[in-house]
Amino acid sequence: MTDDRKAFFAETSALDMSEYVVFDYFFESTVEPTEAAAHLCQEQSTAQWCRVGVEEDLRPLHAARVIDLVVERRPDKPCLPFQIDRWDRLWDCRVKIAYPIRNIEASIPNLLTAACGEGAFFSPGIHAIKLHDILFPPGYLERFEGPKFGVEGLRAWTGVYDRPLFLGVIKPNIGLAPEPFRDLAYQSWLGGLDIAKDDELLFDTAWSPFEKRTRLLGEARRRAEQTTGKRCCYLANITDEVDRLLDLHDIAVRNGADMLMINAMCTGLSAARMVRKHTAVPLVAHFDMVAPFTKAPYYGIHSRVITKLQRLAGFDAIIFAGMGARMKTYRSAVLDDVKACLRSMSLRPDGTLDPSTDCPIRPALPVPGGSQWAGSLKPLFEDIGTTDFAIVPGRAVFGHPDGPKAGAMSLHQGWEAVTAGVSLDDYARDHQELAVAISHNAE
Amino acid sequence: MTDDRKAFFAETSALDMSEYVVFDYFFESTVEPTEAAAHLCQEQSTAQWCRVGVEEDLRPLHAARVIDLVVERRPDKPCLPFQIDRWDRLWDCRVKIAYPIRNIEASIPNLLTAACGEGAFFSPGIHAIKLHDILFPPGYLERFEGPKFGVEGLRAWTGVYDRPLFLGVIKPNIGLAPEPFRDLAYQSWLGGLDIAKDDELLFDTAWSPFEKRTRLLGEARRRAEQTTGKRCCYLANITDEVDRLLDLHDIAVRNGADMLMINAMCTGLSAARMVRKHTAVPLVAHFDMVAPFTKAPYYGIHSRVITKLQRLAGFDAIIFAGMGARMKTYRSAVLDDVKACLRSMSLRPDGTLDPSTDCPIRPALPVPGGSQWAGSLKPLFEDIGTTDFAIVPGRAVFGHPDGPKAGAMSLHQGWEAVTAGVSLDDYARDHQELAVAISHNAE
Repeated sequence: MTDDRKAFFAETSALDMSEYVVFDYFFESTVEPTEAAAHLCQEQSTAQWCRVGVEEDLRPLHAARVIDLVVERRPDKPCLPFQIDRWDRLWDCRVKIAYPIRNIEASIPNLLTAACGEGAFFSPGIHAIKLHDILFPPGYLERFEGPKFGVEGLRAWTGVYDRPLFLGVIKPNIGLAPEPFRDLAYQSWLGGLDIAKDDELLFDTAWSPFEKRTRLLGEARRRAEQTTGKRCCYLANITDEVDRLLDLHDIAVRNGADMLMINAMCTGLSAARMVRKHTAVPLVAHFDMVAPFTKAPYYGIHSRVITKLQRLAGFDAIIFAGMGARMKTYRSAVLDDVKACLRSMSLRPDGTLDPSTDCPIRPALPVPGGSQWAGSLKPLFEDIGTTDFAIVPGRAVFGHPDGPKAGAMSLHQGWEAVTAGVSLDDYARDHQELAVAISHNAE
Repeated sequence: MTDDRKAFFAETSALDMSEYVVFDYFFESTVEPTEAAAHLCQEQSTAQWCRVGVEEDLRPLHAARVIDLVVERRPDKPCLPFQIDRWDRLWDCRVKIAYPIRNIEASIPNLLTAACGEGAFFSPGIHAIKLHDILFPPGYLERFEGPKFGVEGLRAWTGVYDRPLFLGVIKPNIGLAPEPFRDLAYQSWLGGLDIAKDDELLFDTAWSPFEKRTRLLGEARRRAEQTTGKRCCYLANITDEVDRLLDLHDIAVRNGADMLMINAMCTGLSAARMVRKHTAVPLVAHFDMVAPFTKAPYYGIHSRVITKLQRLAGFDAIIFAGMGARMKTYRSAVLDDVKACLRSMSLRPDGTLDPSTDCPIRPALPVPGGSQWAGSLKPLFEDIGTTDFAIVPGRAVFGHPDGPKAGAMSLHQGWEAVTAGVSLDDYARDHQELAVAISHNAE
């Protein structure tokens, strides 16, 4: 290896790992892996490390460094039909790169530029690359606010401690005036829905002005709480231009909406962090515009990275693509997102790469979404292994043939069947709402 | 076709096309295309179009509609190694969808949710999908500010009317203190560089505080203008958390930076629009975090869409992946981005799908980036067919063996060769800076 290339490699023991975040990439290269990995570090940090004619080296402080490089296989054709004209040999590699925090500070856009910018995606000899993970030293994480409530705070907020949370997407999702929309939500709360939510496509519009909608649903939510004696939450979608987000937050909270949703990749993660610094209520992320860069198998960004960054930005609950044929997502990828919500994203304080069990950022509630109903609870609970998750059905509550109240009741009955250790069909024999839900789901 | 499916199809003549934006997708489906396309419209708009037990239909006002559907081929295996377990038949289709503006209003995050959200990327029967284009009716475009300066305004701002603009990325890109960084920029201005710019990885850091950097370079820029008698611009990178952007704008402008750069997909497009509403100087977009969702051939979002949306958000110049082996981008895709900057993105007022020659949004200057030097000018000029573009070399100016002044001079000499109709080598015979640049580039 040339000296210039060596300068982009380091042992973790030789670095103060509290000063580096760690990027974990898959890449496929047409050049020898150490050359490709060194170039990758160069492109995403000190592209030119000295002035012409000056004896200096900016790399010791500012260069990204390869701290681990494994060649996984030697394929005989490119992993994707990419625009490479020719290749003699191909290498599929996994590389971990230590990136100096002093280059980017605790700023999400800066971090994204370093991890997913021109340097990472246009490095010589690398035609396919996917960012699989990011790990952070604890001191770096402490510079972010993270979720204000987290899983524990959300449980206290909703008063639900011993089971998954039941979110429901109010449907018809768009087109209804605030009054009938309110009536649907009210019915679902009477049936025990924990959180009635705006669809991700429901915005502040002429036919459903945000001020009026949040006022009507805020009033109805409180009325439902008086009627049922239980906590009823309304999750309002504030997604809109960044310069409106804080105003929409204030309107919503003043009007009685008690949770807020942001389509985070559409507004930008940094905008979400801005709302987090200001928010009075829990924040929920919706996964629009995540698939376009996460789902290609050998290119882009793994969804766990987006989930982690949403948690870092301060979301208390994160909706992502869940199980089921419609979501076209590998079971393992769904569970990766669950872990990104619940587990530590912190490196050990001693700088070793194993995750620490301790994490300065609160856990966020995982919400693996997509075509859910009462029958989704058991398999999800078994997959996830904890009740710390939520489901987010739409049709199963608001398309239930006997109305949203019955729809919400069917979810509770579905969970009762799980805790009773009884099959759904058995439990449905004397639970009409669940019986109807089973037929409805089979349609 | 069932009636429910038919409700998601329309002739453009039957719609008031001034009330719709048009999304143009490639998709590959495992179900019959009209079924797949109808479902796609349903998922991205009226997922449920009536309340249970109520005679109503929200689709006439709120449904997305297929206005064009073409089956391009019938492949025998999936276009990407995606998570689909089985298929009987496959269809590769192009579909144009009219999307109701009343659902989203003139909001970039709302538009992104509709075009690239859960609905588009998780529609039943469609496992691969790529958003290829968006077209807008003129009345919709008028609700956006667009570039404050545009190509004409940028020419007036820089005083360069008759050739491509020469941007240069100051290098070493990161790690230098403001004083030597300023000295490099000053030298490049003496050599005639139009715009010396911060690297996309250079942020507000402890070792290069933004306040100090912009002050020193603002002063040096003015000094260079006095010395050369020509306009010298400093493009400062304000990329950072969204809630700092307007402050950084104000600091930069007060200190004499006269153009500002944002890594737009890292901050979010809507944050850029917020800066646009406030800005006193031209704005330039850099293309970090664009590749992860634009470069997979059958999945994600075409880069022309991102370029158009950056122009819509208000950038006066847009840097994107240009020509050359390192950029791994098809020539046609580069030219698509050039067109997205310069040509109309407006539908004709009569609603026909041909682009109107008139566009309420000013053109943005295309900057196809990547490893450029004096020799990049001729092929780019021939490809683009106009001088309305910029190049953005780094090494060719700031790594020039005789320093940044000579590097900047070599660009002018390269362009002089083009206008003189002389080969670069011939012109270099009595132009030392160009001769050195030619050898340097061959290294």
